[in-house]
Amino acid sequence: MYLLFIQFNNYSHIIFTWALQILLLFIAYAIFNPLGKKLITSALKKSTKRQNISEARVLTLEKLLLNIYSYLLIFIFIVMLFGVFNLPLGPLLASAGVLGLAVGFGAQGLVSDIVTGFFLLLEKQIEVGEYVSTAGYEGIIEEVGLRTTKLRSFDGTLNFIPNRQLEGVSNHSRGTMRALVDIGISYDENIDHAMEVLQTVCTQFQTDERFVDGPSVLGVQSFGSSDIVLRIIGQTQNMEQWSAERSIRKAIKEAFDQANIEIPFPHQVNIMKEN
Amino acid sequence: MYLLFIQFNNYSHIIFTWALQILLLFIAYAIFNPLGKKLITSALKKSTKRQNISEARVLTLEKLLLNIYSYLLIFIFIVMLFGVFNLPLGPLLASAGVLGLAVGFGAQGLVSDIVTGFFLLLEKQIEVGEYVSTAGYEGIIEEVGLRTTKLRSFDGTLNFIPNRQLEGVSNHSRGTMRALVDIGISYDENIDHAMEVLQTVCTQFQTDERFVDGPSVLGVQSFGSSDIVLRIIGQTQNMEQWSAERSIRKAIKEAFDQANIEIPFPHQVNIMKEN
Amino acid sequence: MYLLFIQFNNYSHIIFTWALQILLLFIAYAIFNPLGKKLITSALKKSTKRQNISEARVLTLEKLLLNIYSYLLIFIFIVMLFGVFNLPLGPLLASAGVLGLAVGFGAQGLVSDIVTGFFLLLEKQIEVGEYVSTAGYEGIIEEVGLRTTKLRSFDGTLNFIPNRQLEGVSNHSRGTMRALVDIGISYDENIDHAMEVLQTVCTQFQTDERFVDGPSVLGVQSFGSSDIVLRIIGQTQNMEQWSAERSIRKAIKEAFDQANIEIPFPHQVNIMKEN
Amino acid sequence: MYLLFIQFNNYSHIIFTWALQILLLFIAYAIFNPLGKKLITSALKKSTKRQNISEARVLTLEKLLLNIYSYLLIFIFIVMLFGVFNLPLGPLLASAGVLGLAVGFGAQGLVSDIVTGFFLLLEKQIEVGEYVSTAGYEGIIEEVGLRTTKLRSFDGTLNFIPNRQLEGVSNHSRGTMRALVDIGISYDENIDHAMEVLQTVCTQFQTDERFVDGPSVLGVQSFGSSDIVLRIIGQTQNMEQWSAERSIRKAIKEAFDQANIEIPFPHQVNIMKEN
Amino acid sequence: MYLLFIQFNNYSHIIFTWALQILLLFIAYAIFNPLGKKLITSALKKSTKRQNISEARVLTLEKLLLNIYSYLLIFIFIVMLFGVFNLPLGPLLASAGVLGLAVGFGAQGLVSDIVTGFFLLLEKQIEVGEYVSTAGYEGIIEEVGLRTTKLRSFDGTLNFIPNRQLEGVSNHSRGTMRALVDIGISYDENIDHAMEVLQTVCTQFQTDERFVDGPSVLGVQSFGSSDIVLRIIGQTQNMEQWSAERSIRKAIKEAFDQANIEIPFPHQVNIMKEN
Amino acid sequence: MYLLFIQFNNYSHIIFTWALQILLLFIAYAIFNPLGKKLITSALKKSTKRQNISEARVLTLEKLLLNIYSYLLIFIFIVMLFGVFNLPLGPLLASAGVLGLAVGFGAQGLVSDIVTGFFLLLEKQIEVGEYVSTAGYEGIIEEVGLRTTKLRSFDGTLNFIPNRQLEGVSNHSRGTMRALVDIGISYDENIDHAMEVLQTVCTQFQTDERFVDGPSVLGVQSFGSSDIVLRIIGQTQNMEQWSAERSIRKAIKEAFDQANIEIPFPHQVNIMKEN
Amino acid sequence: MYLLFIQFNNYSHIIFTWALQILLLFIAYAIFNPLGKKLITSALKKSTKRQNISEARVLTLEKLLLNIYSYLLIFIFIVMLFGVFNLPLGPLLASAGVLGLAVGFGAQGLVSDIVTGFFLLLEKQIEVGEYVSTAGYEGIIEEVGLRTTKLRSFDGTLNFIPNRQLEGVSNHSRGTMRALVDIGISYDENIDHAMEVLQTVCTQFQTDERFVDGPSVLGVQSFGSSDIVLRIIGQTQNMEQWSAERSIRKAIKEAFDQANIEIPFPHQVNIMKEN
Repeated sequence: MYLLFIQFNNYSHIIFTWALQILLLFIAYAIFNPLGKKLITSALKKSTKRQNISEARVLTLEKLLLNIYSYLLIFIFIVMLFGVFNLPLGPLLASAGVLGLAVGFGAQGLVSDIVTGFFLLLEKQIEVGEYVSTAGYEGIIEEVGLRTTKLRSFDGTLNFIPNRQLEGVSNHSRGTMRALVDIGISYDENIDHAMEVLQTVCTQFQTDERFVDGPSVLGVQSFGSSDIVLRIIGQTQNMEQWSAERSIRKAIKEAFDQANIEIPFPHQVNIMKEN
Repeated sequence: MYLLFIQFNNYSHIIFTWALQILLLFIAYAIFNPLGKKLITSALKKSTKRQNISEARVLTLEKLLLNIYSYLLIFIFIVMLFGVFNLPLGPLLASAGVLGLAVGFGAQGLVSDIVTGFFLLLEKQIEVGEYVSTAGYEGIIEEVGLRTTKLRSFDGTLNFIPNRQLEGVSNHSRGTMRALVDIGISYDENIDHAMEVLQTVCTQFQTDERFVDGPSVLGVQSFGSSDIVLRIIGQTQNMEQWSAERSIRKAIKEAFDQANIEIPFPHQVNIMKEN
Repeated sequence: MYLLFIQFNNYSHIIFTWALQILLLFIAYAIFNPLGKKLITSALKKSTKRQNISEARVLTLEKLLLNIYSYLLIFIFIVMLFGVFNLPLGPLLASAGVLGLAVGFGAQGLVSDIVTGFFLLLEKQIEVGEYVSTAGYEGIIEEVGLRTTKLRSFDGTLNFIPNRQLEGVSNHSRGTMRALVDIGISYDENIDHAMEVLQTVCTQFQTDERFVDGPSVLGVQSFGSSDIVLRIIGQTQNMEQWSAERSIRKAIKEAFDQANIEIPFPHQVNIMKEN
Repeated sequence: MYLLFIQFNNYSHIIFTWALQILLLFIAYAIFNPLGKKLITSALKKSTKRQNISEARVLTLEKLLLNIYSYLLIFIFIVMLFGVFNLPLGPLLASAGVLGLAVGFGAQGLVSDIVTGFFLLLEKQIEVGEYVSTAGYEGIIEEVGLRTTKLRSFDGTLNFIPNRQLEGVSNHSRGTMRALVDIGISYDENIDHAMEVLQTVCTQFQTDERFVDGPSVLGVQSFGSSDIVLRIIGQTQNMEQWSAERSIRKAIKEAFDQANIEIPFPHQVNIMKEN
Repeated sequence: MYLLFIQFNNYSHIIFTWALQILLLFIAYAIFNPLGKKLITSALKKSTKRQNISEARVLTLEKLLLNIYSYLLIFIFIVMLFGVFNLPLGPLLASAGVLGLAVGFGAQGLVSDIVTGFFLLLEKQIEVGEYVSTAGYEGIIEEVGLRTTKLRSFDGTLNFIPNRQLEGVSNHSRGTMRALVDIGISYDENIDHAMEVLQTVCTQFQTDERFVDGPSVLGVQSFGSSDIVLRIIGQTQNMEQWSAERSIRKAIKEAFDQANIEIPFPHQVNIMKEN
Repeated sequence: MYLLFIQFNNYSHIIFTWALQILLLFIAYAIFNPLGKKLITSALKKSTKRQNISEARVLTLEKLLLNIYSYLLIFIFIVMLFGVFNLPLGPLLASAGVLGLAVGFGAQGLVSDIVTGFFLLLEKQIEVGEYVSTAGYEGIIEEVGLRTTKLRSFDGTLNFIPNRQLEGVSNHSRGTMRALVDIGISYDENIDHAMEVLQTVCTQFQTDERFVDGPSVLGVQSFGSSDIVLRIIGQTQNMEQWSAERSIRKAIKEAFDQANIEIPFPHQVNIMKEN
Repeated sequence: MYLLFIQFNNYSHIIFTWALQILLLFIAYAIFNPLGKKLITSALKKSTKRQNISEARVLTLEKLLLNIYSYLLIFIFIVMLFGVFNLPLGPLLASAGVLGLAVGFGAQGLVSDIVTGFFLLLEKQIEVGEYVSTAGYEGIIEEVGLRTTKLRSFDGTLNFIPNRQLEGVSNHSRGTMRALVDIGISYDENIDHAMEVLQTVCTQFQTDERFVDGPSVLGVQSFGSSDIVLRIIGQTQNMEQWSAERSIRKAIKEAFDQANIEIPFPHQVNIMKEN
């Protein structure tokens, strides 16, 4: 009797622990299942509001995340249940671990995209409508997403760029831009005279409202093989640099024509030799 | 007697636990085997429907996945059985882990392909029939698969590209495209006159239905070594940019011929020198 | 006596467990040794049949795999035996693990080859006899192996390419190919006239059976420095594109000769200047 | 009674341990929660003061770090609670570990940014306002942040560069800069004479306050295809090198004009041959 | 007495287990030490015979492997001994593990070399005396070793290439090679006439025993800037392609001289213009 | 009573162990805290003396290391305390491990810098004041630090290079340098005559103290398209190679002028053809 | 009494085990400390003798290794001591592990250097004084060290190359070298005649002792744009290839001058056109 009691007692002890642990597991599951889902939903809602991301896309992401969360929770629940019955967990965990690692490596790019995207928005590196060149692409930002950024090239192409590739962003829409024109004059020309003519052209443009800091002549930039290169530099309103440069080029050509200053063609000295 | 009883009791206790655990294992196996297979089959069916993937390919993939799942489950079952009998699991798990890692590294590309492919479809970056350039390939999308995307180059080549290489997609089939023509005129030419002639040509094309935003003359783009380069830009219907550019080029040449404006050849100034 | 009995009892208990575990180990070994070998042999036989791989190579691979399997099983068996006697397994497993990892990293390329090779065959990306360019190689596929693909370059070289390098395959043997001829005419030429002559040539080739979609003139492709470039495009039978292009080129030259249209040499304007 | 007591005793023992451990956990939580938050806040405040980082950005970072810290602490607290009740922790930890690794890989770039940024500031490699070229960018430093450095290119573009890309910084604002002018003279010219003329020009500039170490003529740098290249080198005030070079170039041209020394065009010997 | 006995008993029990385990360890050591050495020696002998590797090198490798094996076994033996006395093994194993990993990473290249070398030999990708280009090297194979392959370049250089770099081998010694000659004729020339002359030359070579598939004229390969390019292709004996091409070139030149067909120099149209 | 005693005894036993372990922990902390700090301080002092590193920088590093050491020690102390109370350590360690790994990956570059820097100094690869080219930089070493090396380019730029990038250092300040001058003569020139003239020039320089091994004429280096290239080579004092080359060039030009040997311009044969 | 005895007994048991284990630890330390140091010293001595490495360097390395070994042993000893007192080792080992890994990654390059260096010496790939090109460097080997190889470029630069970069060594000092001269003749020239002249030159050199396999004319290597290129090839003594090529070039020029064979300049056909 005594021994049987001990034995029963022993079993009862085990069963008591089991029951308690299973109960705790169910309670934990009942708490964490709705809690986690709520957290995911609200976190996504927040980021949607703040960052102007289209709702349709977020809904898909939400559904995906909820699915993953559910499966993960069920998996943990089942494995812990196994553990409660003292079934060896090693094989299960090892198998899940290898699978998880493989998937994790695959999803690593995804995480990297989201982290970079987060900082892109946090540090306001790019905003919709800005002219940006990054990762070998150049154009106007159309959308900054959680995972991908859309950039419209000037030839009309729409580029989808994973955010993790946006390392080092050159934003051309932040402040005044430089207008730079290099112009070659003949080696026979008087440099001072040419620079005076150019300065006259520059003076005309200083009242042009496209210019923030009126263009001016810098001097002799280099000796070319057939010409002396003079440089003009000015600061323009953002996105006005190209039109400003075009106007300066036209004005220079016309001023040079009037002043009889030649923009030289390539030169070559030919030495004739009898065969 | 008493001691024998304890001993037996001891063994009975062990055997009781063993029996229970083995029973639980069999039950778990009986549950998870059909369940997992069903999940795989239904998950694949769903994705087949939604994403227009050919059935034959999915069948092969399904067979492959079911095989892997069966082998994995049997492996876990056997190792856990070993664990129940207190056989040391370390060596088994270590060996399986190293093997698994090696295979996992090999399969990592596969996972990466599927994850990227999933987002390609989710974010609608590319669709069948679109003209796309990505990963050094350029052409028309023929099929977006789970693992590979087929792209037909313009020279007729069919390219099979693993999805993980499709990072950064330039889609040329989303919106109006730019038609751009650069045309060089002689340094002797009057720029204003040439731009008037070009503008006349542009005006003709503004009624052309290929153009969304009629072409217009931008101005002096650059000083070439032998010519002054003028630029014309317009917005065309998608895929009409090349034909539009060709038409503009022909029209410009004809207008220039009529207006006696020369498109200059390369120039060189020759200075003769006696030897 | 009593205590001795306990002691003996204690030992007997240990010995009982040991005996049982060793027995189980031997049984497991006796089961898994032939089973695994059978699985390897049959798996290889299957893949040999389906994928036309030469038998000699498979035999070598089979022998290799059987050897590895035997050594692995013996290793696991011995380490588990150690574990049964409660000898500390840590050092053994750690040493084996580091060795295994080193070998595993080395063999990782092998696994990657086989996985890629598997999908090459499954997705029918390449087949023997097709003209393919991939991984910087270009030529005719001679054999698709488990680990390596053989590709014969047009200059006769036989290239052995590990399958893992075959990412992104350009298959030139799937469908009609494009024949493209660019031809330059003088700036003095009448474009309409030249295009008529070219169109006449194209019309002749529309009955040529090499062409699937008869060649036609596209228009002014670009302004060269000395010529206006016109483009002709057509669709040909696979592998007939080069011969078709050669024929068109010859025909154009003859038609231009007859129509007195010149294919211009590079032009240069020379301005003479006294030194 | 006795046995019940033992049993109760047993349970009471377990419960005693549990109670104690839970108590300790709560105490630890109550200590570490405010402590950690204080540490984070003060650490950030310090770095803000010392390194002139804008406050707004630090506030966002602080909020982010506090959030992460809270979630982490709660997670640890819950898992330890599970552990107290002897629930198997393996599955939880494994799942969290894989997730953590995936996030960790994604955040690795972030850590790398901060470490590199720390050393950039510690070693005073760059300071706001300096002219620097690094990671393919060139321009003036606008801000050195915790994660990103802002660099303003000379064309007005604002570049956001993750600090981890700033490996190898070329700082052009530390000390005198070199002014270097190469000038070609004809093969017919007397080298000594040309070098005298150049030296005269250099002497004029030695009183120029832009020069720290007056320019001087080095000698025959190379034989060009049409000219003999002479080199002039001097040391200038920082950022004055370009203006100094421009002035020297202008002065040389004028001195050569006076001394009748020609800067030669490309030469070619023409041998006439009858066809 | 009784308690002392228990105590002694207890110790005796421990000592009994210890003695047994130490005994087992010594036995295992006595078995595995000579066994492993034998295995290494015989494995190396086998591979030496089959793959013609010089004996001297194998002897060095054997000595190295035996040394490593001895040290490893002694290390395992000592650590297990520690384990038997219940000394904590963690620190030892962790230290050894980190060291092992560091060495393992270093030796990883070695393993990769041997695996690749194994497949090079197994798949007969290269054999001594073959003309091969791989990994940026080109020349004749002199030796295929366990770790390194020796390749003699045509300029006499002996290249030592680690086998793991031999990914993608282009073997030029497997089958007939292509002889290809491109020849330019003047735009004034009659294409048909030139092709007839070339075909005559080709016919002469069809009896040349260097050719497997006699050379023939393909047609107009391209329009050059100054010439029309015709192409001749043939199949030659291996390694005879260069000498065959040289002979064809010489014959073409002579045939063209006889037929008065000119191989044109670069052409340029010069337009003279007054300054 | 008896049972209570046992119970108390039991607890007293636990408490005894706890007390002892906590005591030991405090002792260990009291020992290792000052010890470690002393080690760090003295190790840094040593390296400062031997390697001439500025003190200010070492002080900052010392402060940093002491901070890290303190935090680490406190962390270990706390976690061990948790362990003494049998609180589950897994979650804590796992969290710390993932954090540590993330930080470790970030700090890995730092370790790599220090290891490489250590060997740079140990092997005396570079010393302050030497002219070195490495990692794409070229200039004079200004400082070799623990983490970064400062290199002053010839244009005055100060480059900060992380030591780990200094793999493969080309040190131009170790021994005599080569002076090499290539000079082209006309195809019409007598080679022997030109080499005699050059040799005369070389003889003059053999007494020049800049030369260690007097310059001499090597012979015909190559056939250029318009000239025959002769080569002169000599060994000079370190850093005198450029000035020596300049002097030789000037001397050659003057000797050739005297000997009427022409340094030819590019040649071209012109064949006139009627249009 | 009885219970106290049990308790004491219990403690005495613990203390007995502790004492024994501590004793064993001290014995192990006393054995392994001198043993390891001896092994390190003797291993280094051996390698010094066999491989001619300068002693000074080895002494530094020895000191470094002994230091590391001492610290490691002390660390292991202390941690094991902690383990004996049942203090939780997890935190200590985890911290040490993360540190160790970080250092290990940093030192990984070092290990890789030594492994590669070992095989460089074992396989005799390079020896002091040989002319080698590898890893982008080219020159004479000055020293092959344990970690670094010193290579003297021909311009006098001393290059320090970490051994792990020496993958793929091109050794130019193993056997005869090829002398190769390409020479262009005019299109008007008789090929047979020119080859006869060249063959005469070659015959002269066949008695030259620099040649191992006398030079001979191969034939028409290619059709240049202005010349027909003929090729001469021969085998020379090692390091005599350049001087041999120079002599052949001089001899050819002189032979061509005598035989009135012209080495042609670039040709151009000029077509004059009125503007």
